[in-house]
Amino acid sequence: MLRHSSKVSTKAGLPPGTLMKVGEKRCEKTTISVIDYDSKSFEEQTVERVEDIFPYKDTAKVTWINVTGIDNIDVIEKIGSYFGLHPLVLEDILHTNQRPKMEDFGDFLYIVLKMLYFEETENDIMAEQISLILGKNYVISFQESEKDVFGHLRERIQKSKGRIRTMGSDYLAYNLMDAIVDNYYIMLERLGEYIDDIEKELIGDPDREILEEINYLRSEMIFLRKAVWPLREVIRNLERRDSLLIQEKTVIFLRDLYDHTIQIIDTVETYKEMLSGMIELYLSSVSNRMNEVMKTLTIIATIFIPLSFIAGVYGMNFEYMPELQWRWGYPAVLVVMVMILLLMVFYFKKKRWL
Amino acid sequence: MLRHSSKVSTKAGLPPGTLMKVGEKRCEKTTISVIDYDSKSFEEQTVERVEDIFPYKDTAKVTWINVTGIDNIDVIEKIGSYFGLHPLVLEDILHTNQRPKMEDFGDFLYIVLKMLYFEETENDIMAEQISLILGKNYVISFQESEKDVFGHLRERIQKSKGRIRTMGSDYLAYNLMDAIVDNYYIMLERLGEYIDDIEKELIGDPDREILEEINYLRSEMIFLRKAVWPLREVIRNLERRDSLLIQEKTVIFLRDLYDHTIQIIDTVETYKEMLSGMIELYLSSVSNRMNEVMKTLTIIATIFIPLSFIAGVYGMNFEYMPELQWRWGYPAVLVVMVMILLLMVFYFKKKRWL
Amino acid sequence: MLRHSSKVSTKAGLPPGTLMKVGEKRCEKTTISVIDYDSKSFEEQTVERVEDIFPYKDTAKVTWINVTGIDNIDVIEKIGSYFGLHPLVLEDILHTNQRPKMEDFGDFLYIVLKMLYFEETENDIMAEQISLILGKNYVISFQESEKDVFGHLRERIQKSKGRIRTMGSDYLAYNLMDAIVDNYYIMLERLGEYIDDIEKELIGDPDREILEEINYLRSEMIFLRKAVWPLREVIRNLERRDSLLIQEKTVIFLRDLYDHTIQIIDTVETYKEMLSGMIELYLSSVSNRMNEVMKTLTIIATIFIPLSFIAGVYGMNFEYMPELQWRWGYPAVLVVMVMILLLMVFYFKKKRWL
Amino acid sequence: MLRHSSKVSTKAGLPPGTLMKVGEKRCEKTTISVIDYDSKSFEEQTVERVEDIFPYKDTAKVTWINVTGIDNIDVIEKIGSYFGLHPLVLEDILHTNQRPKMEDFGDFLYIVLKMLYFEETENDIMAEQISLILGKNYVISFQESEKDVFGHLRERIQKSKGRIRTMGSDYLAYNLMDAIVDNYYIMLERLGEYIDDIEKELIGDPDREILEEINYLRSEMIFLRKAVWPLREVIRNLERRDSLLIQEKTVIFLRDLYDHTIQIIDTVETYKEMLSGMIELYLSSVSNRMNEVMKTLTIIATIFIPLSFIAGVYGMNFEYMPELQWRWGYPAVLVVMVMILLLMVFYFKKKRWL
Amino acid sequence: MLRHSSKVSTKAGLPPGTLMKVGEKRCEKTTISVIDYDSKSFEEQTVERVEDIFPYKDTAKVTWINVTGIDNIDVIEKIGSYFGLHPLVLEDILHTNQRPKMEDFGDFLYIVLKMLYFEETENDIMAEQISLILGKNYVISFQESEKDVFGHLRERIQKSKGRIRTMGSDYLAYNLMDAIVDNYYIMLERLGEYIDDIEKELIGDPDREILEEINYLRSEMIFLRKAVWPLREVIRNLERRDSLLIQEKTVIFLRDLYDHTIQIIDTVETYKEMLSGMIELYLSSVSNRMNEVMKTLTIIATIFIPLSFIAGVYGMNFEYMPELQWRWGYPAVLVVMVMILLLMVFYFKKKRWL
Repeated sequence: MLRHSSKVSTKAGLPPGTLMKVGEKRCEKTTISVIDYDSKSFEEQTVERVEDIFPYKDTAKVTWINVTGIDNIDVIEKIGSYFGLHPLVLEDILHTNQRPKMEDFGDFLYIVLKMLYFEETENDIMAEQISLILGKNYVISFQESEKDVFGHLRERIQKSKGRIRTMGSDYLAYNLMDAIVDNYYIMLERLGEYIDDIEKELIGDPDREILEEINYLRSEMIFLRKAVWPLREVIRNLERRDSLLIQEKTVIFLRDLYDHTIQIIDTVETYKEMLSGMIELYLSSVSNRMNEVMKTLTIIATIFIPLSFIAGVYGMNFEYMPELQWRWGYPAVLVVMVMILLLMVFYFKKKRWL
Repeated sequence: MLRHSSKVSTKAGLPPGTLMKVGEKRCEKTTISVIDYDSKSFEEQTVERVEDIFPYKDTAKVTWINVTGIDNIDVIEKIGSYFGLHPLVLEDILHTNQRPKMEDFGDFLYIVLKMLYFEETENDIMAEQISLILGKNYVISFQESEKDVFGHLRERIQKSKGRIRTMGSDYLAYNLMDAIVDNYYIMLERLGEYIDDIEKELIGDPDREILEEINYLRSEMIFLRKAVWPLREVIRNLERRDSLLIQEKTVIFLRDLYDHTIQIIDTVETYKEMLSGMIELYLSSVSNRMNEVMKTLTIIATIFIPLSFIAGVYGMNFEYMPELQWRWGYPAVLVVMVMILLLMVFYFKKKRWL
Repeated sequence: MLRHSSKVSTKAGLPPGTLMKVGEKRCEKTTISVIDYDSKSFEEQTVERVEDIFPYKDTAKVTWINVTGIDNIDVIEKIGSYFGLHPLVLEDILHTNQRPKMEDFGDFLYIVLKMLYFEETENDIMAEQISLILGKNYVISFQESEKDVFGHLRERIQKSKGRIRTMGSDYLAYNLMDAIVDNYYIMLERLGEYIDDIEKELIGDPDREILEEINYLRSEMIFLRKAVWPLREVIRNLERRDSLLIQEKTVIFLRDLYDHTIQIIDTVETYKEMLSGMIELYLSSVSNRMNEVMKTLTIIATIFIPLSFIAGVYGMNFEYMPELQWRWGYPAVLVVMVMILLLMVFYFKKKRWL
Repeated sequence: MLRHSSKVSTKAGLPPGTLMKVGEKRCEKTTISVIDYDSKSFEEQTVERVEDIFPYKDTAKVTWINVTGIDNIDVIEKIGSYFGLHPLVLEDILHTNQRPKMEDFGDFLYIVLKMLYFEETENDIMAEQISLILGKNYVISFQESEKDVFGHLRERIQKSKGRIRTMGSDYLAYNLMDAIVDNYYIMLERLGEYIDDIEKELIGDPDREILEEINYLRSEMIFLRKAVWPLREVIRNLERRDSLLIQEKTVIFLRDLYDHTIQIIDTVETYKEMLSGMIELYLSSVSNRMNEVMKTLTIIATIFIPLSFIAGVYGMNFEYMPELQWRWGYPAVLVVMVMILLLMVFYFKKKRWL
Repeated sequence: MLRHSSKVSTKAGLPPGTLMKVGEKRCEKTTISVIDYDSKSFEEQTVERVEDIFPYKDTAKVTWINVTGIDNIDVIEKIGSYFGLHPLVLEDILHTNQRPKMEDFGDFLYIVLKMLYFEETENDIMAEQISLILGKNYVISFQESEKDVFGHLRERIQKSKGRIRTMGSDYLAYNLMDAIVDNYYIMLERLGEYIDDIEKELIGDPDREILEEINYLRSEMIFLRKAVWPLREVIRNLERRDSLLIQEKTVIFLRDLYDHTIQIIDTVETYKEMLSGMIELYLSSVSNRMNEVMKTLTIIATIFIPLSFIAGVYGMNFEYMPELQWRWGYPAVLVVMVMILLLMVFYFKKKRWL
């Protein structure tokens, strides 16, 4: 499914910066929730009108504005104009086929990530685009559908677990990214288990459906790599603190996140290599079975064709075939046949075909 | 068709800078159209004589001179000498087998791009070379044939949609490149659909024509990569603003375009890998069918060769074959044969060949 | 077994820095041993309570604190808070699926390595994570189980062999890393011998189990590469002496260690290429055997099918078949058959099939 | 033939700088021709004695000294000592297995190139080494045999076509390199046509000779890449104008040449990939034909083996076989046989084997 | 044989810098020869006691001390302590499984190289480690056995051929390296001839031994690459003159040597690619032969199985088979059989199987 998430041609020809949703429709309604906190206070609400979030822009507290559903272009546009987002940023939020990237606009950072799930019912990987706007005291996150991986994070902010309530918006953005990347591990583990299952089946009794499944997974790996690889550069750039929005004490966490992305890339590459190895294994197992089939045929044919020939000879109707009148002719021929049979079996045993 | 667009040997031996059209003839007539605009005024015309475009060179307005058909060397030469283009630039405009590149001549930039189409009637990719001269207030574009992808752009300039009328010639050049790159998306999407079709056919009932088609597409991918890969460097260089002709506010658009070229390169690479995977799938399906054929043969032969042997034995003409006189000899042999048959079927069932 | 040592998903959703053991349980009890030495004195003891190691932190002597078993989070936490380790470092110590890495925290360096064994009973590679904390006068090492490779080193410190007693904590850390890397050589040698054994078997009489073993080893190589490759960068960084904790006179030893890691990486790559070559060899040997099987079938069938036909002809029951009444008909047919047989044998000899 | 042009071992053991011709003997006689020109005058002659060229060294005019045939070591040595060439340069001129390279000796540049031909009679690529010495007012070129690609250039100098007569020795050297590189295009085009021919044959009726030809061409590509790849670096270095011998106004021509070398490298890589694809196509066509052969065998055998069995049953000589006495027994058996035949044909039709 | 020259595990556990010979025993006795020369004088001797070489350390003349056989650790240790070599250097001299490398210790350079031979009796590559110590006025070379490639060099020094007697110790070291690298050419040429022989055999009549030989050579290439690749970096570093021990006038010779190493690396890569191509060729030739075998079987079986069936039909013993009584039944059947035969032959001709 990763594979079919990249159609943008409908937009070709429009001026750059034209806002238009590109991508599969996922969520009709746009919901905006706001979490506003500092070390002492915590406030959570779902706003009715988009204008309700504007006051949070300049408060000293950290504000997390989460926009669910991006099909309502109006809302996106209003947020964009109030928070001073460049039209191209808004365009990228709406185009859900971006590569992960980070852009520094001075007073805010724009970060695009992919949220990835392993859908067990279909044994397939699903992707959703998350856009983050990291400003001085706020983080705006745009997600395509209601399904997300931020539940634990919301709980931690609310219950003030860990250091989240004492740090700034950059640490909040880090936590959002960390939640997404942590979820990659889950996705990769499920995928790994699925690959293990397929491998077991492959060793047991391979059929063509397995080959197609392996091939499908391998092409998914190609797309997965496309989704994960640029993430490394994104986090590397954040960690280098080119932007003043990233504080010194957050860097160590970003470095940790960077290590995670490298591990994830490693794992994707490894899965890809394993799947290639499995295709080879499949092909060799097809050869092996062919070999066995041919051996069976050869053994049977090689034994019985000469015997049948002998029977054929004594089935000829010549008048003068002295053997036919012999008293022990028939048993003698049977003995000869058994001897040939034994010889053949011995030969095949020696050749280790039996 | 990408493959056969690279013959230049006819020119070998001539002094460098000799003007001579190299490439397939596409368009006999050379047409020159001029669009001249600023935020307030707009003028569009098709000029009769090449000299008519000269006055536009130094106006304060932005001028887009579009030259369609480059088989008329005279016209190209006149434009070259009036606008001060180096003979090697003119040579490159006429040689339609350039790699995409950007060259900075101080007072103008020379940019070569490839316009790519997916021709659905032939399921093939067609290429056409576009040369851009970006000067202070003008852009000259040279295209091989009348077919182009600039229709939407012309309309946007005329109707003053977006910010095009308020920005300079660099933004116009960006828009030309953007139109070309946007068209790559369309081309890749068509190509992707065609590859999907082929893949479905491959799973259904593969034959040799499909293999040849896949192989052909894969070699097209090699040429496509050659056409797209250097584009990345071209736009990267423009974005770095080494040239004063590129204004600060255009850079963000070029960065966006840069992201697009990376996505396109990614997609081309991915298609290439997918096509390689499909070749493997084809080969394995050939093996599979062979396997099935062999199994059928083996089952039939393995069952009937021993049975025929038994029949052959009792077809022998020995005088003293006591079984032949037995009252129940014949039925007994038939029973033995049926038992052997059942044994064989059971054996094949166990081996899962049936 | 390298392959299944990377589950971390159970931790997803917890705040960063939450301490929780991730990885297989290896050792229930946590033992802490302390070796304290300078050129003149030597003291070794196993402490009962974790607090007993605290006084060693600031002594002038070099102290090696070895923590065996990391399932007791309490102990790790106490050490961490006394020695001022960042929560993320403690998290990494507990997560036994780290890539090898080095992090500089100013007053201490954190180094993660993998201890690798070749388990001969299972012909498999086992991995264990070692974390080192290198401070001014102390080294703390965390190992997962009691099995380690530091026996020789302990003996050398005790008996004051080599220069170990006269140098600082950085040289001690180098020795720990050297012991681990030396053990890679042993592991690779065992592995090499095992690969040689497999290769011999492959040339002798290849069967499918061998292919699966080769494929398994190849996928282990992929994981081994993941474990060894980053080591190079770790030691390179130590050697560059960015940290003041590394003294000038230790650098030459680190450079030597660096050479060793490159040799090890080379060897892993080489094994991987050799295993790929062996898969090709296996596939070709399957083809060869198929060829031989087919040849046998073809020779037997090609000789006897025509002969059987002749016998069949004279087994027909036509009333008017003059040959049947001929006195020498039967011997003549036998002679013809033998001649055909010889002709066939000659033909196969010429084709070099016999 | 590219492949066998690299024997130098006969020289092993001699001191560095020992002059000795290494490579195939091509041309016994050494001929030296001199072209001396400036914008007004032109003089061409073939000198008798090597000393005759010495006066040209310090004239203000541009002098092109072309040495054909390098088997006469004496001549080379005299030129070397008069023009102050380092013994290692002379050694490299005589060793015709150099990689393309450029060396800057301050008052002259030493450039090695390969002249490549596609020999149509043998469908093979031939190589010849060209050494250029670029001094302030002169260019000395050494070529192995009389065959060269400089005819057009000589004519252009004589007839003063293009800007050649007005520019310096660096532009002359550029023109020599350009002539060689232009010839690569011709060579590649011929090669491309030959590859196209082979591809057509491959699709039509592939046999083993084609495979060997493809494999040979592919190995030639490996050697071709070795000959062309370093050229890129050579011209890049010239273009960067590290040497004062290269004038500003020549740089743009060198940049153009640089583009050409990249195109050529691209083409070589592409041919290599195409040839690899053709090998795959060949192998799959072999599989396909095998498949067809097997199908034919299977169909015939599967139809007739059961029928023969039935005939065999009624050929048995049991006394009590009631069917044999039936009036309609024979026709009934024939009907059964035809029905089995039809059933089989229907089965194969359904399986799409017929 | 390259493959099995890398056992060091016996040393694991010893302190770094422990001297112990690691590698195959080659030469029991250690011989030390000294060559001392300047432009005027020359002296050569084989010393009895290692102390005899000490006076040569500080003479103004250039001294080449050649140590043959490194199994006598005592001797190595004495040289090391007198010439001030670091224990790790001595360890590296004794461990004959080093990668080629260069280390700068200020007052001397330590260079490790591999001497490679092609052993024609076994068609295998043999390796021996050479260590060079380049000091101000001396070069110490350590070689494992008496066989070396320095004969020509000794002669040149003695007879004062070339510039060797007039230059310093760095030029001597260059000459030693040049002799080793020149020998690589010989080795590669022999190897190349052997590969050519194998290729010819492959085209003629490939059998499984050839495949194993090709595979063996390919794995030797992997090890050869490991031995040659780092050499490039070694010589590059020497050429860059970071060390004061390398004089300006030696640099041009080192650059020449650098070119040679690149050519050698190129050749090794090329051989590797050629061997891979040969494996493909082998596999395809196996397929081809299988094809031919199958065709023979199919033709014979397809022709005779239907004919046998016809004979079988008229061998049935039905009482009422009117054809059997016909006067021309037998000839008619024979005619039908011949017609079927001709039809089949025609069919196979059309299919180009005959």
